[in-house]
Amino acid sequence: MSYHVTLPRLQCAMDVYLIQTSILFCSLICGLGAPNTADKSSPNIVIMLMDDMGWGDLGSFGQPSKETPNLDSMAAQGMLFPNFYTANPLCSPSRASLLTGRLPVRNGFYTTNAHARNAYTPQEIVGGISKDEILLPQVLKKKGYVNKIIGKWHLGHRTHHLPLEHGFDEWLGAPNCHFGPYNNSDRPNIPVYNNSQMVGRYYEEFEIDKKTGESNLTQIYLKEGLDFIFHQAKARRPFFLYWAADATHAPVYASKRFLGKSQRGRYGDAVMELDDSVGQILNSLRDLGIDKDTFVFFTSDNGAALMSGPKQSGSNGPFLCGKETTFEGGMREPAIAWWPGHIPAGTVSQQLGSVMDLFSTSLSLAGLNVPEDRAIDGLDLSPVLLNNTHVNRPIFYYRGNEMMAVRLGPYKAHYWTWSNSWEEFNQGIDFCPGQEVAGVTTHTQQEHTMQPIIFHLGRDPGEKYPISVLTKEYQDALSRITPVVVKHKNGLVPGLPQLNMCDLAVMNWAPPGCEKLGKCLKAPKSQPWKCDWPH
Amino acid sequence: MSYHVTLPRLQCAMDVYLIQTSILFCSLICGLGAPNTADKSSPNIVIMLMDDMGWGDLGSFGQPSKETPNLDSMAAQGMLFPNFYTANPLCSPSRASLLTGRLPVRNGFYTTNAHARNAYTPQEIVGGISKDEILLPQVLKKKGYVNKIIGKWHLGHRTHHLPLEHGFDEWLGAPNCHFGPYNNSDRPNIPVYNNSQMVGRYYEEFEIDKKTGESNLTQIYLKEGLDFIFHQAKARRPFFLYWAADATHAPVYASKRFLGKSQRGRYGDAVMELDDSVGQILNSLRDLGIDKDTFVFFTSDNGAALMSGPKQSGSNGPFLCGKETTFEGGMREPAIAWWPGHIPAGTVSQQLGSVMDLFSTSLSLAGLNVPEDRAIDGLDLSPVLLNNTHVNRPIFYYRGNEMMAVRLGPYKAHYWTWSNSWEEFNQGIDFCPGQEVAGVTTHTQQEHTMQPIIFHLGRDPGEKYPISVLTKEYQDALSRITPVVVKHKNGLVPGLPQLNMCDLAVMNWAPPGCEKLGKCLKAPKSQPWKCDWPH
Repeated sequence: MSYHVTLPRLQCAMDVYLIQTSILFCSLICGLGAPNTADKSSPNIVIMLMDDMGWGDLGSFGQPSKETPNLDSMAAQGMLFPNFYTANPLCSPSRASLLTGRLPVRNGFYTTNAHARNAYTPQEIVGGISKDEILLPQVLKKKGYVNKIIGKWHLGHRTHHLPLEHGFDEWLGAPNCHFGPYNNSDRPNIPVYNNSQMVGRYYEEFEIDKKTGESNLTQIYLKEGLDFIFHQAKARRPFFLYWAADATHAPVYASKRFLGKSQRGRYGDAVMELDDSVGQILNSLRDLGIDKDTFVFFTSDNGAALMSGPKQSGSNGPFLCGKETTFEGGMREPAIAWWPGHIPAGTVSQQLGSVMDLFSTSLSLAGLNVPEDRAIDGLDLSPVLLNNTHVNRPIFYYRGNEMMAVRLGPYKAHYWTWSNSWEEFNQGIDFCPGQEVAGVTTHTQQEHTMQPIIFHLGRDPGEKYPISVLTKEYQDALSRITPVVVKHKNGLVPGLPQLNMCDLAVMNWAPPGCEKLGKCLKAPKSQPWKCDWPH
Repeated sequence: MSYHVTLPRLQCAMDVYLIQTSILFCSLICGLGAPNTADKSSPNIVIMLMDDMGWGDLGSFGQPSKETPNLDSMAAQGMLFPNFYTANPLCSPSRASLLTGRLPVRNGFYTTNAHARNAYTPQEIVGGISKDEILLPQVLKKKGYVNKIIGKWHLGHRTHHLPLEHGFDEWLGAPNCHFGPYNNSDRPNIPVYNNSQMVGRYYEEFEIDKKTGESNLTQIYLKEGLDFIFHQAKARRPFFLYWAADATHAPVYASKRFLGKSQRGRYGDAVMELDDSVGQILNSLRDLGIDKDTFVFFTSDNGAALMSGPKQSGSNGPFLCGKETTFEGGMREPAIAWWPGHIPAGTVSQQLGSVMDLFSTSLSLAGLNVPEDRAIDGLDLSPVLLNNTHVNRPIFYYRGNEMMAVRLGPYKAHYWTWSNSWEEFNQGIDFCPGQEVAGVTTHTQQEHTMQPIIFHLGRDPGEKYPISVLTKEYQDALSRITPVVVKHKNGLVPGLPQLNMCDLAVMNWAPPGCEKLGKCLKAPKSQPWKCDWPH
């Protein structure tokens, strides 16, 4: 299907939003004269979460192509974090952690079907985000924030798991990955929602040309973001925009204007379009005069998906391996904070940060407390952001139900190592292409709990040189790390695992709104099974 | 030997230069009233060449520690080159190429003792830079430039090979690497020269504490550079300063103020001190009001020496392997050009550049022509620098007498692959630690001349994914590269190889000036042999 055919269809799909947005706009205009109930000190919050974008994909993080001028400017005007981590080397758990401030093993975004397995939310998953979890937008509502998610949700696609059930006021995007196209007979194409109603499906109303890589999705998401910001600014209501574009997840896509423009091929085209979008969003904040009232954070959900090959994945810079692994390439993320007049421009923070900190930090900036009835793993980084201070804290690297590694200061201790199984590896699935560190990038699950493998990430960011256990340095590092791990494990109450059960009947056969579009499909009979998570 | 003992000795050695510098200063003061014979349009030229510093060692090139604020500022005020190459993955040939504008295979800095071997100038080498070669300072003299080299020469240590025999007016530094200490009975310590006289030896008057890593050498080189700049500025004479500090070559060293300051250990300490020195040099140009009259270029001689391990070597960022190899990690260099008011600030040039271009570009900026009686490989990059234009040109990757690879646009074709021999590798010498690309990082010399291995360096900077020979992309790339290679090979007249013969008798037993210091040693009888270059 070529874009000559599909562009009008995309345009059509876009028109639907424009009409709906206009309705929203009218309703907001009516409120213009109303009193602003929000605390004026609460800044707007924009979290831009990329999909499978790697640490090394930004010029300011060392991408040789240097094709991200807007993000590099953002860093020059804000604070850059070279030591920022996701909570999991995979999409769904990472996103659940960002919005709950809690490790996946607490918020339920993991599996116990097998040891140390990466699990996520394909459309056959039965589970999703629990109503027992408290999400960032739910708390922000207490201060009158209008909350919108644009793009990928990935916390479960069944109706009770969707964003508007969990604190978001608006949504344009999809619940699952944009894999496909599917045949709609034994597997439906992924729906795209506007708020709580399906408005089309990927590869149908929302075209992605896998052959050419063309899709207008990023432009749709950009326009939706700009409209939302415009309307909230005019309404003078504080807002939380969670902008979760997914163009850098395979199948990678870009719109026509960007295709072929990068030195890096299609993946680089997608990065350029996202960089351009970031620039437009920051510019709109400036133009609307709310840049000094808006905290913006840019990061990614996990490391570059190296197993997708050079045409469909990004760069993890000097780090080891990528997505799916607990090596640095799997979990260290590009990260930039921006808030003119508040965050000192052009600074680099060596603070160890986590996507979970975005929960605690956003609440702190909004003048809200984190929930006190549960363990929260995210830290409030506002002192770091506003005064460039530093807080000692560990980073835990989980794979499913297992703490694989921990970082404290410059030291990282691996208690378990695994890249992927020999079986997968021999089929050509490689999470560490071109990299091999003996005894580290193991193809069997190797336990090192009695004597962890320790690296100094300052002089060895690529995790290539295990520190000899015979050295004082090793013993000193271990003696500092051990009590941190003991404390963490002793205090850990795992949540109910949400990613254990699968069922073809729960797939996106008939999402709400399908009737109006005539796009309902018939679900097969329920036959649940324990999902198989191979790595 | 601790620094408590050695610092006074260093101070003593420094005093010698201060006295000598004062004499020079007086001689220049006398000339202050004299007419300025130089063309006023000729800018001063400062080339800062680092030793074994890798592409990934600078914050602006992606070093996670982000500890090079002065170099990052230099980039923000100047032009950054992410695609800049050395002419050889080893020190001596690279430096010979920088100063002659010619490939090592032309200027004689290679060996024919075995195929595709890295050769350099240890102190048993008989050869060095030939009097038949024309060096940059020799040509600059035509325009009245005062030429000084500070630091490592490495183009031969026998008297007729030394800098003042080849166009430099002044020198403070050493002819060879600062390996050691040696015992002075079967191997002399390396001499340090002031101009054409030895003024001491490493590990004797010029201490390097290998245990603590402390040495004041960078501070000595910095002060010497600042003094030189000051005196030339006051004398209003155009100058060429070739600042070739070697703190990042193993054994890595830093002065007390910087030791322990980096997140990266001693290597990072050395980088921080060099970064600080760069900042001081640029500041002095500003303070003297000659920043707009001075073209400054920062780069390195070859990739990070990964075989030296994480405590003694740097980072090649996302690139494959390091020093000694013709993969990107061996030859792609950090590079920044700075010339306020002339080079547009904050630009990134995608131009493929080479250290050999510094020869042609410097001459062009000085209003001089390159020699017309010989092949010059360096390009004049002044249009790139001044107008951000772009020139198509190939990069040739040589190892000794063999063209191993060529880059044209984003494509790199490997005609020969070799990391190092199994014999060395099995001894633990590893040029590609933690990296292994099947069929690429080979431990035997593999010929691919009939069907080169081709990479797209834009989407695959790490040379991990050879393009299938069955694709149109491969055929298109090869059809463009082949005529370039044929032309290059047809036009190549190799120079007389200078790095074939070794002899213990030629070592630094009795350098000029040793008598005054009572530091002459007795040379053994001459017994020349064909040097063994194992990799």
